[in-house]
Amino acid sequence: MTRSLQQVIDPAKKVFLIAHVDPDGDTIGSTLALAHALGKRGKKCTLACSDPVPSLLSFLPGVEKFGVPQVTDHDLIITVDLSDPGRLGRAYEHVLELSLPVVNIDHHITNPMFGTVNLVRSDAAATAEIIFDLLSDWGIALDQLMATYLLTGIVTDTRSFSTSNTTPRVLEVASELMGKGASVTEINESYYRSKGAGTLRLWGRMLDRMELDGRIIWSVNTLEMRRECRADSDNGIVNLLGTVREALAAVVFREHEGHRIEISMRSRPGVDISSVAVHFGGGGHPQAAGAMLDGNLEQVIPRVLSRTREVLDSAD
Amino acid sequence: MTRSLQQVIDPAKKVFLIAHVDPDGDTIGSTLALAHALGKRGKKCTLACSDPVPSLLSFLPGVEKFGVPQVTDHDLIITVDLSDPGRLGRAYEHVLELSLPVVNIDHHITNPMFGTVNLVRSDAAATAEIIFDLLSDWGIALDQLMATYLLTGIVTDTRSFSTSNTTPRVLEVASELMGKGASVTEINESYYRSKGAGTLRLWGRMLDRMELDGRIIWSVNTLEMRRECRADSDNGIVNLLGTVREALAAVVFREHEGHRIEISMRSRPGVDISSVAVHFGGGGHPQAAGAMLDGNLEQVIPRVLSRTREVLDSAD
Repeated sequence: MTRSLQQVIDPAKKVFLIAHVDPDGDTIGSTLALAHALGKRGKKCTLACSDPVPSLLSFLPGVEKFGVPQVTDHDLIITVDLSDPGRLGRAYEHVLELSLPVVNIDHHITNPMFGTVNLVRSDAAATAEIIFDLLSDWGIALDQLMATYLLTGIVTDTRSFSTSNTTPRVLEVASELMGKGASVTEINESYYRSKGAGTLRLWGRMLDRMELDGRIIWSVNTLEMRRECRADSDNGIVNLLGTVREALAAVVFREHEGHRIEISMRSRPGVDISSVAVHFGGGGHPQAAGAMLDGNLEQVIPRVLSRTREVLDSAD
Repeated sequence: MTRSLQQVIDPAKKVFLIAHVDPDGDTIGSTLALAHALGKRGKKCTLACSDPVPSLLSFLPGVEKFGVPQVTDHDLIITVDLSDPGRLGRAYEHVLELSLPVVNIDHHITNPMFGTVNLVRSDAAATAEIIFDLLSDWGIALDQLMATYLLTGIVTDTRSFSTSNTTPRVLEVASELMGKGASVTEINESYYRSKGAGTLRLWGRMLDRMELDGRIIWSVNTLEMRRECRADSDNGIVNLLGTVREALAAVVFREHEGHRIEISMRSRPGVDISSVAVHFGGGGHPQAAGAMLDGNLEQVIPRVLSRTREVLDSAD
């Protein structure tokens, strides 16, 4: 018989919380809110993430607590917003083999239920919405900080209430979080409205090289382009490519050191692009997915475009 | 003694509704919703706008009813979302001189109260929020169509719940409108997520020519660039420039036929860019404003940048 969430969390004294690799606003905001609440219940929390927290999220107080510590005398592991164990990252790829209970809190429909207890609700717009309900069940009053953590998860995972996972309910939750002092403007200003001029120069270069191939719009982001524009990241330009009227799918090919190409994909409702990502060992949502492939751009681009074309054809 | 809204609207049989020049989602959505409601109350409505409704809004059923008709045997004029009489446009610049009552419904703080009755509430995120309350006062049940009209106004005027006019209250209203069948995804897909590939090519060119001048980021959109990219419009790239971390203000200079330059401006909270627009004969909100200037790019750019610099300096 599976244990209940309460049976696992109540006796725990030292909790090890894991955010997913390539962390976003939902995994970081939800983890911070949950740790804050567990702290109020007298538990010590360790915050872990295989990758550094992006500077875009540095406006959230407490992000400096994330690190890559070892699991030591902890008595519970909680994974937050991890669609699958692959999202644990290298530092934590073996934690599921430890003899510790694992609580898997997530909202991805593809979640394989890898926890001892699985709090997985694909009806939730963000894992933050699940944490909001959990804290409400626990009778924990939200302060401004917790509200900001949770609203960050919601705003970032719904791209500011614009994606198809935006429900009347999540707008109500957001309204309540604003009532506790969280600000959608601040979160948007910090997360979306904060690009370096170098990033926009990189966008200019990427848009110049953009190609429309049938119903696929795509572009590349090479190491050299990033160096020349003095930009670390293209900061979600794939979302912009996903707005092109002529296209059903958008792909960005991002060159990394060590002959690896990261692909980020977006698609219109009705086209499940996550199947392309899964095919290449990645994952995601139907309208937003990604993967990391070995090879160079010349090798990777035709393979990915070909597979994407197949998915578009089968969606007809 | 001023007359009440009810005293003016109740006896009216033929209502002439005017949306503002360069129409946006709020003026069009709010006018359509109000006309729909007045129709339910047995009134005949004429929908007017000096400019054509942009194709971005053609997903709204009923936009084809907008035209540039004359005021004839109407007994009431209602202006919807007009911050000042200048927004009536050439076709209607004299309607305030007619001996007809005028209802001025708007949410701009700068509104000079030019109506016989002024329903101006600057606490409202959008004029659509005012119409929502009005219809609720009138006891008119919202159907899916009216909910879509109003949610379009809210989504477009808050840039999908991201600007500082987004209140807990407007999120609640939006939640209620979604409950009536309106879809934030559809509105966002239709309004924001619908750019031609040519538009993005134009963005690439504009980002290549982008300049960071102190704390002002700016770029140009020439007739030749639009022709070469086969793009009619730069579709709000000024919003993107407004995200640049190094800048407090963003300006786009858009060249038009007849030696006219349109400027679109954005600024960070704390910098009131509308004063620059007003100086050059335009207007707007503190964080989003615009104007039309006579001259060529070489003449207009230094004048506008110089004035913007003064505003930034005085905001320090």
